[in-house]
Amino acid sequence: MPGGPDWNSAAAEWRQLLGDASVSTAEESLDHYARTCSNSSRRARAVLKPTTQDEVVEIVRIARRYRTPLYPLSTGQNWGYGDACPVREGQVILDLRRMNRILEIDAELGYAVIEPGVTQRQLSDALAERKIPFWCDCTGAGPHSSFIGNIVERGFGHTPYGNRLQTVSGMEVVLGTGELLRTGFGHYEGAKTTHLYPYGVGPFMDGLFTQSNFGIVTQIGLWLVPIPEAFCPYLVLFQEDDDLLRALPRLQRLRLHRILHSVPHIGNDLRALSSDRPFPRDRLPGAARLTPELRAELRRAAGIGAWAMSGAFYGTRAQVRLHRRLLNGALRGIGARAIFLPPTTLALARRAAAFLDRLGLFPGLGKKIRAAQALSNMHSGRPTGFFLRGAFWRKQGGWPADLGDDTDLAGEQVGILWMAPILPFRAQDLAELTRRMDTLFADHGFDCHVTVNMINERALAAVYTIDYDAEDTDETARALACYDAGVAELYRLGYPIYRASLRGMGLLAPHADDPFWATVSRLKSVLDPDGIIAPGRYEPGFVGGGEERNPAGACG
Amino acid sequence: MPGGPDWNSAAAEWRQLLGDASVSTAEESLDHYARTCSNSSRRARAVLKPTTQDEVVEIVRIARRYRTPLYPLSTGQNWGYGDACPVREGQVILDLRRMNRILEIDAELGYAVIEPGVTQRQLSDALAERKIPFWCDCTGAGPHSSFIGNIVERGFGHTPYGNRLQTVSGMEVVLGTGELLRTGFGHYEGAKTTHLYPYGVGPFMDGLFTQSNFGIVTQIGLWLVPIPEAFCPYLVLFQEDDDLLRALPRLQRLRLHRILHSVPHIGNDLRALSSDRPFPRDRLPGAARLTPELRAELRRAAGIGAWAMSGAFYGTRAQVRLHRRLLNGALRGIGARAIFLPPTTLALARRAAAFLDRLGLFPGLGKKIRAAQALSNMHSGRPTGFFLRGAFWRKQGGWPADLGDDTDLAGEQVGILWMAPILPFRAQDLAELTRRMDTLFADHGFDCHVTVNMINERALAAVYTIDYDAEDTDETARALACYDAGVAELYRLGYPIYRASLRGMGLLAPHADDPFWATVSRLKSVLDPDGIIAPGRYEPGFVGGGEERNPAGACG
Repeated sequence: MPGGPDWNSAAAEWRQLLGDASVSTAEESLDHYARTCSNSSRRARAVLKPTTQDEVVEIVRIARRYRTPLYPLSTGQNWGYGDACPVREGQVILDLRRMNRILEIDAELGYAVIEPGVTQRQLSDALAERKIPFWCDCTGAGPHSSFIGNIVERGFGHTPYGNRLQTVSGMEVVLGTGELLRTGFGHYEGAKTTHLYPYGVGPFMDGLFTQSNFGIVTQIGLWLVPIPEAFCPYLVLFQEDDDLLRALPRLQRLRLHRILHSVPHIGNDLRALSSDRPFPRDRLPGAARLTPELRAELRRAAGIGAWAMSGAFYGTRAQVRLHRRLLNGALRGIGARAIFLPPTTLALARRAAAFLDRLGLFPGLGKKIRAAQALSNMHSGRPTGFFLRGAFWRKQGGWPADLGDDTDLAGEQVGILWMAPILPFRAQDLAELTRRMDTLFADHGFDCHVTVNMINERALAAVYTIDYDAEDTDETARALACYDAGVAELYRLGYPIYRASLRGMGLLAPHADDPFWATVSRLKSVLDPDGIIAPGRYEPGFVGGGEERNPAGACG
Repeated sequence: MPGGPDWNSAAAEWRQLLGDASVSTAEESLDHYARTCSNSSRRARAVLKPTTQDEVVEIVRIARRYRTPLYPLSTGQNWGYGDACPVREGQVILDLRRMNRILEIDAELGYAVIEPGVTQRQLSDALAERKIPFWCDCTGAGPHSSFIGNIVERGFGHTPYGNRLQTVSGMEVVLGTGELLRTGFGHYEGAKTTHLYPYGVGPFMDGLFTQSNFGIVTQIGLWLVPIPEAFCPYLVLFQEDDDLLRALPRLQRLRLHRILHSVPHIGNDLRALSSDRPFPRDRLPGAARLTPELRAELRRAAGIGAWAMSGAFYGTRAQVRLHRRLLNGALRGIGARAIFLPPTTLALARRAAAFLDRLGLFPGLGKKIRAAQALSNMHSGRPTGFFLRGAFWRKQGGWPADLGDDTDLAGEQVGILWMAPILPFRAQDLAELTRRMDTLFADHGFDCHVTVNMINERALAAVYTIDYDAEDTDETARALACYDAGVAELYRLGYPIYRASLRGMGLLAPHADDPFWATVSRLKSVLDPDGIIAPGRYEPGFVGGGEERNPAGACG
């Protein structure tokens, strides 16, 4: 058994490698990374900021030599799942945001080769500036979110390329051994197809480096969305719960036949309300859940129904016309209405709304147009921070004045916890699970904010969100209890989650002797034999150093 | 270092486990498995035929105990890549064809849960009999080909689900340790989404069990193709090489925008000729390559152009109409013609052809209609052996009289070697590579049979086939030399192959110290620590027991 970590020797070598300015142990810096919007604060011991892959290789070799655990992050915007915190107390953060080169853009076949620090806005801007006829897929995580960071967590976006792992070809990964692995065809010198065909020849390994701690992904080839001749975002408004449930089998047929060919997102009324305003504390002092009456009243006032679905059509003009007809046809006889928002319509609406706003008529209209614009942008490769607003639902004192695209959620005193199960794409599963989750949320005194996303043709990725007041100790404790009970319930009911928060890592292995997690451990033992990369991340059996979690309420 | 394999003890325990009838060492049986259509005969030591997963687990445990290498196969139809031969001499074949249960078919969400012995015809028939509104994706490998066998080799089909690995959700794998691994959500008891969402939570491992020797895949969830309202196979005939090259950028746009949404296959004139007749030995005695004049003459006589593309449209009637228009539009001004073959047209053509055949007019017409019917069937979930005919191009004595769907290629004295590189979806790559390969084939005295398949939106999977006379020692030696030179050339030019034959396994690692293959070895060391599963398969550095290949010419 080798001795424990030798932090001082490692730090000295890292300083020599990177320079003092790129190795920080300043309290202020450590405080910054320890911030959280989901009560999962862990404090790092130091922060390293390399700028090249070679430096990452050297950092890992030094870490191996001195047995010092590292925690890699891309831009640290894993909101609600752990933010920029390491998985365990005292790990050294390897912040890759300075590795932000766009190494290549192929304007003919439509891909980009990027590093972990490349953000949604950066790639979006680069494509627009160079007039590349492709868009990037966007998520609602905001303009500063990293593609690689999101993809290694298996996040998903909104466009036809929203199932993001299927749009990656050719990874470069620094393993825990310090070796540089090129996946697919990337390890064959001069291969012309590394970024065009992901599998290569021999075992296909890319999946191993998602939701794991085997290596540090330092580069990927990312496929881009071809800009279509016509583009038409849409909203479908469902009056009552039952209208959504009646529509769901028809929507599943449309998705199965790829008529719905993007990843449509469906949100409940609370998701719409919470991106428009905070919880009405004045009306319900001391409560964190709306009464049915007040919820109905707010819904009426906002002019929304029980659920709203957003998506977009991409294609030739004739294709888009046809798909609009097919969607309208599927909604016939149901309390639902599709609103189509092609760019020309949206531009006209924007002008009309500005005019009506000046007249003081329909005061909510401008807001709705802004929401529609944000949605349209996100579906056409322009990231927005608009959809982070919901996190402020329970914030004391309401919204910050400067709430814009650049909101840094971890820096705000907000509380959000996501539970994200995968469901069969069937109305009865959605109805039953949402009923149960709402009961569980009610038992803990919270509103159940829900989105349901058509991640593929057969499954829905649901996100049940607890929005809580992170400055209220009692409410925070209730939120955490609700989360733990909710995740346990999801496993019990047969709907395991697709992605874990730092808090959820320990809940991943209900049985101690699961061969799946035993296999994961065995893979870890050869890909990172000294266990220096993010020990404890997607490694539920890990019992090594560092705390597993903070006591409830100790919010960073 | 433990001792060598103890075959006798292992065989005794296998007999006890399976019964004598399921453990064969009879010469006749070993001869049967040693047959090959690509000069890669290796003789197994014994053949085991389990019927259940539990038996497979026990077989592996016994093999571990006695250090006896196993070679798993599904139905043994890996034509041209190794047939049913083990990768090295003397391994024990684990023939899984009796594990042929269709465990579940979900008629609503469209998937089947199947074992390795389930063939294309079996699943196709089951879907039709039970009137399930889904088809299965088919390959041209014939009705008796296994889905699992093909998918673990990363084969591809023709339909919108032709990129087959993307249609698998939930694997069960018996590891070399003897453990049963369930991937995705399958290891969570009662999970309802195992076959609906492949990734699960934690590392996504499915890719590891393709083109590898880490475990034995005993079960998969397979997504099925929803039967569309309208279905329209098509053929596009290109007059000259240049017509295809001019069309290619336009076809790439159509594929990129998913207007071509299946996996269209493009074959050269030789592919069409060879599925219609054998090489005209009488006209060119002693030669294995057509003269340009004779090739042109045969092409004219068959009424075909330089290339033909086949694919199909799936959708509503209006969608299919629109897609037909878009394809026709893309071909405008090019020496190419699209022929659409919806089921009604094909039925009429069949009747008309029968009539004309009886009159003795247009004698080739009936054949063409049969080819079109085979194509239509394959695109709509009905497998056919029609496309195996090309393998008989160089066969002495011409075609067998009973050449039908059930042809067992390994049992015929035919010779085929495939080289299957991936190319960028660009005309200049295809033109340059095909020119070089044709020169190389000519240098070795062969015709260069080519198909080019639109495996995804950005890459082409090309197959350059050497059809040779396996009964002619000299011609066989030339074919093998051509293959070795061709594969080396592909790596040199930057177009590595997507799949290796037994002969090609040793060529996978041009450099001894490639971190990719070092990683593969390390994974092997924990997933199959005693190296008992197919040692040498996708393991180019393997130097253990068994011969790597037969001397040239020793054709099984």
